[in-house]
Amino acid sequence: MNASQPKPQIPKTAISPTRAENYAEWYQQIVRASDMAELSGVRGCMIIKPNGYGIWELMQRDLDRRFKETGHENCYFPLFIPLSYFQKEAEHVEGFAKEMAIVTHHRLSMKDGVLTPDGELEEPLIVRPTSETVIGAAMAKWIKSYRDLPLLVNQWANVVRWEMRPRLLLRTTEFLWQEGHTAHETYEDAMLETRKMLDVYTRFAEDVMALPVIAGEKTAGERFPGAVNTYCIEAMMQDGRALQAGTSHYLGQNFSKSLGIQFQNRDGALECAYTTSWGLSTRMLGALVMTHSDDNGLRVPPRLAPWQVVIVPVLRGDSDRNSVIAYCESLKAEMQAQHYAGESVRVKLDLRDISGADKKWDWIKKGAPLLLEIGARDVDGGKVCVTRRDQLEQGKRFAARSEFVGGIVGELTAIQQNLFDQALAFMKARTVTDIKTRAAFDAYFSKSADNSFVGGQGFVRAKWSGDASSLEALDALGVTIRCIPFDQDGKEDVCVLTGKPATQEVIFARAY
Amino acid sequence: MNASQPKPQIPKTAISPTRAENYAEWYQQIVRASDMAELSGVRGCMIIKPNGYGIWELMQRDLDRRFKETGHENCYFPLFIPLSYFQKEAEHVEGFAKEMAIVTHHRLSMKDGVLTPDGELEEPLIVRPTSETVIGAAMAKWIKSYRDLPLLVNQWANVVRWEMRPRLLLRTTEFLWQEGHTAHETYEDAMLETRKMLDVYTRFAEDVMALPVIAGEKTAGERFPGAVNTYCIEAMMQDGRALQAGTSHYLGQNFSKSLGIQFQNRDGALECAYTTSWGLSTRMLGALVMTHSDDNGLRVPPRLAPWQVVIVPVLRGDSDRNSVIAYCESLKAEMQAQHYAGESVRVKLDLRDISGADKKWDWIKKGAPLLLEIGARDVDGGKVCVTRRDQLEQGKRFAARSEFVGGIVGELTAIQQNLFDQALAFMKARTVTDIKTRAAFDAYFSKSADNSFVGGQGFVRAKWSGDASSLEALDALGVTIRCIPFDQDGKEDVCVLTGKPATQEVIFARAY
Repeated sequence: MNASQPKPQIPKTAISPTRAENYAEWYQQIVRASDMAELSGVRGCMIIKPNGYGIWELMQRDLDRRFKETGHENCYFPLFIPLSYFQKEAEHVEGFAKEMAIVTHHRLSMKDGVLTPDGELEEPLIVRPTSETVIGAAMAKWIKSYRDLPLLVNQWANVVRWEMRPRLLLRTTEFLWQEGHTAHETYEDAMLETRKMLDVYTRFAEDVMALPVIAGEKTAGERFPGAVNTYCIEAMMQDGRALQAGTSHYLGQNFSKSLGIQFQNRDGALECAYTTSWGLSTRMLGALVMTHSDDNGLRVPPRLAPWQVVIVPVLRGDSDRNSVIAYCESLKAEMQAQHYAGESVRVKLDLRDISGADKKWDWIKKGAPLLLEIGARDVDGGKVCVTRRDQLEQGKRFAARSEFVGGIVGELTAIQQNLFDQALAFMKARTVTDIKTRAAFDAYFSKSADNSFVGGQGFVRAKWSGDASSLEALDALGVTIRCIPFDQDGKEDVCVLTGKPATQEVIFARAY
Repeated sequence: MNASQPKPQIPKTAISPTRAENYAEWYQQIVRASDMAELSGVRGCMIIKPNGYGIWELMQRDLDRRFKETGHENCYFPLFIPLSYFQKEAEHVEGFAKEMAIVTHHRLSMKDGVLTPDGELEEPLIVRPTSETVIGAAMAKWIKSYRDLPLLVNQWANVVRWEMRPRLLLRTTEFLWQEGHTAHETYEDAMLETRKMLDVYTRFAEDVMALPVIAGEKTAGERFPGAVNTYCIEAMMQDGRALQAGTSHYLGQNFSKSLGIQFQNRDGALECAYTTSWGLSTRMLGALVMTHSDDNGLRVPPRLAPWQVVIVPVLRGDSDRNSVIAYCESLKAEMQAQHYAGESVRVKLDLRDISGADKKWDWIKKGAPLLLEIGARDVDGGKVCVTRRDQLEQGKRFAARSEFVGGIVGELTAIQQNLFDQALAFMKARTVTDIKTRAAFDAYFSKSADNSFVGGQGFVRAKWSGDASSLEALDALGVTIRCIPFDQDGKEDVCVLTGKPATQEVIFARAY
């Protein structure tokens, strides 16, 4: 920085309250201010707004490419599932039994001037909370022989799980997701698929969302209802809580037995297929907010930014208007000709009829990675005035136009990496590995009634005996085992809950 | 063709029955054989299968680009609409009153071993049949001033309208669509938007789907419930019936008044916004099937083909396997390097473990525009053996590999045009313009009880007085006015129904 550069004029905080003041309220304010989502007039249901939906579209595009590259085809299955399908899958239902929307009538009639449900259905229909049963029923029809396997399908859809305490993006009655469903000839093939798709999620989370995750297996008590094994990736939010970011389930023959997904195997015998399912939802938008936002608003990783660069023209009067706009237009075209992550750089020229300062703050809150303010002096000097969203505290810098454009791909790459590095450093700093006793464990999680941004709890990585009954004592603390990470040290030590010998490492945390 | 070329060996008919034998059943068989869709075990709901969903994804991508180019942003609104929202919009409800799925409970409980709906809702929720009310409620919150206008949103979603007599893709209880919803400052702006989006649909239908359409306005009786004007595009299926392919509604201030979508205008006064809505659905997949299929299966226009070229290796034994596959792989790469309609040519190399003949028929039924069969002799001669789906009756042809690859973009362009030209010729041949009397009109539509592929009815383009009561007589014939086309000759003649003087031309037809 040299003396001629303008001083940073960013107010210390744009979002009120700050993370430190009130984390939960800060989150609500960020989601609102960044135009991501809002609660609707429909209880528990959200509206995903343009910035939120724009990010979701980019998430979809990237994931969809990965699914297709791994041989999956998209289909679409019914929203409604007959009640009888659930009756078949007892264990599965148990897990969802308290949170389903049920359609009982198919007509609305006017009675005494009041619209009234009419035409009662013989069999109630469930609005899908997940589609194992309805897709399994289709698979049972489609699969005849081992030649029909593997069957690899995915669907992008809305699902409904009734929520008494909705939380924007993180926990709403309706949300959007993808659900993959596959059927295989052998245990090995199905397990390979289950783990392969968890790897797809891991690469997506870390490389695209800039979200460091811990990959591992769920304990028996945390498994998906009906699954043999559930694998997951877990991320840490800025209050130290865990968020389950994606799951991949090996379902064994549980669903194929109850739904009749059978095939003639290579020996001519009839056998039940080995199935899997895996899903990732708009909950990840909430994870994005909680991981990357600061006290000024959202910060979007460049790979997911609907607009990677926003140009704000700074007009002092009508006299310079044409030349400034022309400069911005040609600058935009030059940047769009650059390719980042295989696609043209996404540039927005903001010509709204509001003040430059309002525009700038709007884009800071929305999290655009790079912000260019262009006035008459920049035009004369062939310069650009740059603000990097991930280095807001450093204020603006001036750069020669050609130099900036030539370096833009490198700069977007650096921002993406910086957001990942910051999140990883945070997770590491808030993960403790030296708690060895029950007393220390209780003391750690009892420091406050809830988690917080400043100095609160995080992940406890410790040994656990595997004794399920030892987990009951965690209820009062609101703590659960998030996963058994794949990377284990294999050493024997004492179980942090029981004091018994244990070799297995697990992650304990409070969670969303 | 020279003497060394193989003779066509295509059986005369691959789909049974043919269009001429039983049009309705032919349609069902095409949809099944082409892997487009099937009815599910859930009453009235369909499963959209990989080939159908692949085409729908390409339709979405093209339309979405057009929506964004015209300034619209995607959002997502709740699936459920509280009953009270409908109570506000009396006229709107009337139009949908008989066909809604109603959620009345939010819990499934086990009672005496039987899963039972539980947790009755205080207010029933309607599964959206369309979203004017729920999006309008959001707009009422978002819009304060003329500066917030125009507000241009779109959503991709599933909708539900209870169907007693479902028909695959054309009329199902659940279907997928996009619905655009916009609010404007003036009548002129809103009307401009309404017509602009109908133009977007027209260009999409004709240029991308190869579907010739007649654009016009609906009569009062055929309007969308609550609309001031409804505009539409109408296509002709191969049995001469009309299919409404897209609609755009000018809603005036009807919805803004009942939902409170108000803004402070430039004079400082509070005014109700002028709104529009427009939609296009998976019904268009049914239109695609009925327009372009023949007695051998589906024919997909290249712009919408998930695979524009399919390569089927013809292997006589293991000895030639490696060289043939290598040749196919490099041929695939060469074709993918070509660009058609702005994207890499989409090439599938079919390596499934089934016979070459089975593969070929599978792709003929699925409608892949170009099919290449490659055997050892083609490898030796540097040739390709080509079948054009739109010229199946001409059989295979051999071409030098480099010549074929160099001409592939031209060939896809020609196929796209040929499908459009064939559909346009069919529509013209089955449109009559010389029926001037009621007797002639009745005779035309009474030739058979139903429409058919051979010599059946089509469109009658004739004058109509505008007298709504004259339409009642059409009920027995099952005929409706499809639209008042934008291109009018302006001449006065007699109304075909009443004999009164009339200047307005309309299209009469039976419709899906």
